[in-house]
Amino acid sequence: MLTVQTDKHKLRDAKTELHGGQLVPPFECPARVDRILERAKAVKLGEFREPDDFGLDPVRRIHDAKFLDFLSTCWDEWQAAGFKGEAIPTGWPARRMQTRCPEFIDGKLGYYSLAAETAISNGTWEAAKASANVALTAQAEIAKGASSAFALCRPPGHHATSDMYGGYCFINNAAVAAQAFLDQGASRVAILDVDFHHGNGTQDIFYGRDDVFFQSLHGEPQHAFPYFLGYADELGKEKGEGFTANYPLPPGTDFASWGDAMTAAIKRIHDYGPDAVVISLGVDTYKDDPISFFKLESDDYKTYGAMIADLKRPTLFVMEGGYAVEEIGINAVNVLMGFEDK
Amino acid sequence: MLTVQTDKHKLRDAKTELHGGQLVPPFECPARVDRILERAKAVKLGEFREPDDFGLDPVRRIHDAKFLDFLSTCWDEWQAAGFKGEAIPTGWPARRMQTRCPEFIDGKLGYYSLAAETAISNGTWEAAKASANVALTAQAEIAKGASSAFALCRPPGHHATSDMYGGYCFINNAAVAAQAFLDQGASRVAILDVDFHHGNGTQDIFYGRDDVFFQSLHGEPQHAFPYFLGYADELGKEKGEGFTANYPLPPGTDFASWGDAMTAAIKRIHDYGPDAVVISLGVDTYKDDPISFFKLESDDYKTYGAMIADLKRPTLFVMEGGYAVEEIGINAVNVLMGFEDK
Ligand SMILES: [Zn+2]
Ligand SMILES: [Zn+2]
Repeated sequence: MLTVQTDKHKLRDAKTELHGGQLVPPFECPARVDRILERAKAVKLGEFREPDDFGLDPVRRIHDAKFLDFLSTCWDEWQAAGFKGEAIPTGWPARRMQTRCPEFIDGKLGYYSLAAETAISNGTWEAAKASANVALTAQAEIAKGASSAFALCRPPGHHATSDMYGGYCFINNAAVAAQAFLDQGASRVAILDVDFHHGNGTQDIFYGRDDVFFQSLHGEPQHAFPYFLGYADELGKEKGEGFTANYPLPPGTDFASWGDAMTAAIKRIHDYGPDAVVISLGVDTYKDDPISFFKLESDDYKTYGAMIADLKRPTLFVMEGGYAVEEIGINAVNVLMGFEDK
Repeated sequence: MLTVQTDKHKLRDAKTELHGGQLVPPFECPARVDRILERAKAVKLGEFREPDDFGLDPVRRIHDAKFLDFLSTCWDEWQAAGFKGEAIPTGWPARRMQTRCPEFIDGKLGYYSLAAETAISNGTWEAAKASANVALTAQAEIAKGASSAFALCRPPGHHATSDMYGGYCFINNAAVAAQAFLDQGASRVAILDVDFHHGNGTQDIFYGRDDVFFQSLHGEPQHAFPYFLGYADELGKEKGEGFTANYPLPPGTDFASWGDAMTAAIKRIHDYGPDAVVISLGVDTYKDDPISFFKLESDDYKTYGAMIADLKRPTLFVMEGGYAVEEIGINAVNVLMGFEDK
C-alpha cells in the first residue's frame, strides 16, 4: 500500500495542551508520525511519497472561507495582541448567547473553536494545509486506480467542523478527501471513523447529505470527548436522515464488543455500496492509550483491517488519533497489514 | 452606608487563571476585598456587619437546581477523576452540538461554563454561597428601611447565568438580590451594571421578564469579554421586550463618553420608577485596570455615585469586578461616598 506523508507535519509542534487544569506537553505530538513511518518502512508496507499541493480550493469545498482566514491569521493576531502563551480560547458562544464573530482575537478563538485543549501556535496553519494535501494526494492515487492508500495525516482532522477547530484538528482531512471523490464523479462515499473519539466534525459536515454515509465507533459521549455529539439517536437530518450511524461504547470496551459494532458498521457499508470508503483511522482505541478507555490489543488491529478489506472497495485510510506513542506504529500499520492480508 | 462582608470570601482562592494561553495567578483575588474594606473603614463609610445565612432557597429562585448541585460537587468530582490542576473546562456544547449534560466531570464543566479562564478549586462553592448571603443580607437591610447598603460580594456574580458560571462568577448575587426584592413585595426592580464587562448573566436571567429592568454599560462585545452578548440591539424578548438596554462603548472610552451613557441609563431608570435599584458595581472601568480598556479616573467614581443618588430610590450596591487592586478601594468607595455626598 502506498503511504503519503511529509515532514511538514513537524511544523505543528505546540508546546502546551490544556489537560486536567494544567498546561502539559501535547498528547498529539510529532513523534506519532515518526513511529508510524518507521513501522511502515520496517514491514515494507509499500511505496512512500510526498504530497502534491492542491491549494485551498478542495478545502473550501468543506470549510467556511472565514474560518480558513481565521486559521491562517490567528497566530499573528494573537502575538500582535501581546499574549505570551500559545493561542487558547477563554470564552465561547455559550447557550443563549450571540453567534456573531467578535473582532478581537481572544473572542475570535472562542467563536471558531469547540474545545480549549488545542493550542494554536507558529506553524499550525502550514502543517494543517500540508495534512490536507496528504489526504488529497492519497485520494488522487485511488482516483487513478489504486485499490487503497494510506494518508499519514498530521494534524488529524475528524473533530474539525466547517467552521470550528478543536480536539487537535483544524482541517477535516477525511471530509475533504470524501468530497474530492464526489467532485471527481463518485456518487456515494462511506466514511467509517474507528478513532476512539466521535468524529463530530465529519458527522456535522455531512449531517444533511445523502451522498456521504458517515459511521463512527467511539467512547460514549457521556464519558468521552467531544462530550456533546455521538449519541446513538443521531441519524442525520433532512435528506441526510439515515446516512449517519453512531456506535457509542462504554468504558472498558474490548475487541469482543467493539468488533460486534464494527461488524454491524461494515455490513451497512456493504449494503450502501459506496464508490469509495474513507477510514478515519485512529488507534487511540488501544488498551494503553493515555486519554481513552477502550481495551483493544495490537493484534485486534490486524483483525479489523481484514474486515475492512472484505468490503472490496477502493479504500483510503486517513490517519486520525492515537496517543500511546510507542505502540502507535505497530497498531496503525497492523490495520493496513490486516487489510492487505500480510 | 452599611457594608456587609465576610472573611469567607477568602475561601475563593484559585491559583490559576487561563489568560493569554498561560496559567497565571487570578486577577480576581482575595486582596481585592481587603483593599475595599480598608478604604471603607478609613473613610468611616458607615457600619460593617457579617451576613446572615439565607440558605439556598433564594438562590434557587435564580439558578437551576442541577447547576447548583454541579457547583457543590465539582471540585470533589474533579479530584476523584485524578486531575492534578484546578478544574478548567476543555470542551463545550459548541454550534450544532448536543446540549445534553455529560456524566464525566470534564464534560460537565464544559456544559455548565461559558468561559475557561475561571478555575474551580477547593472552597469555591463555600465562598460563592457566602457571597450570595452578603448580597441577601444587604438586600434585607434595605427591605427593612435602609436607603442604601453595600454588599461587598466576592466572588462576583454578574456573568453567571441560571445554568452557567464563568468570568470569575458562580452565583449571580445581583440577580438573587433583585429577585428577593420582588419576592418580598416589590413590583419592579432596576439593575444598572456599571462593571466594565457586560452583565451577560443578569441580562440572560431577566431577558424575558418585565419586572426587572436591566441596563449595562460595558466594553463593546466585539472587543471585550464576554464577547457574545451585550450588543445594543439586545432589548429583551417577549414580555421582557424593552426591559433590557445595553450601552457598548469602544476602547479608550473616558468619562465624558461614559457619563453620557450613564446619564441616559439613569434617566431610563427614573422613568421606570422602580421600587429598588441594584447597582452591579465593578470598577474595572478604571484607566489602569489590567484587563479592561476604559479610561475613568478615580474622581469620576464620586461623580457617578452622585448621579445614582439623584434617583432617590432604595439602592443596593453589589460588588462585581475591578482588577487594579491598589486603586480598587479608592474607586469603589468613591462611588459610595459620591452617593452619600461625602
Ligand atoms: Zn481520537
Ligand atoms: Zn468586569
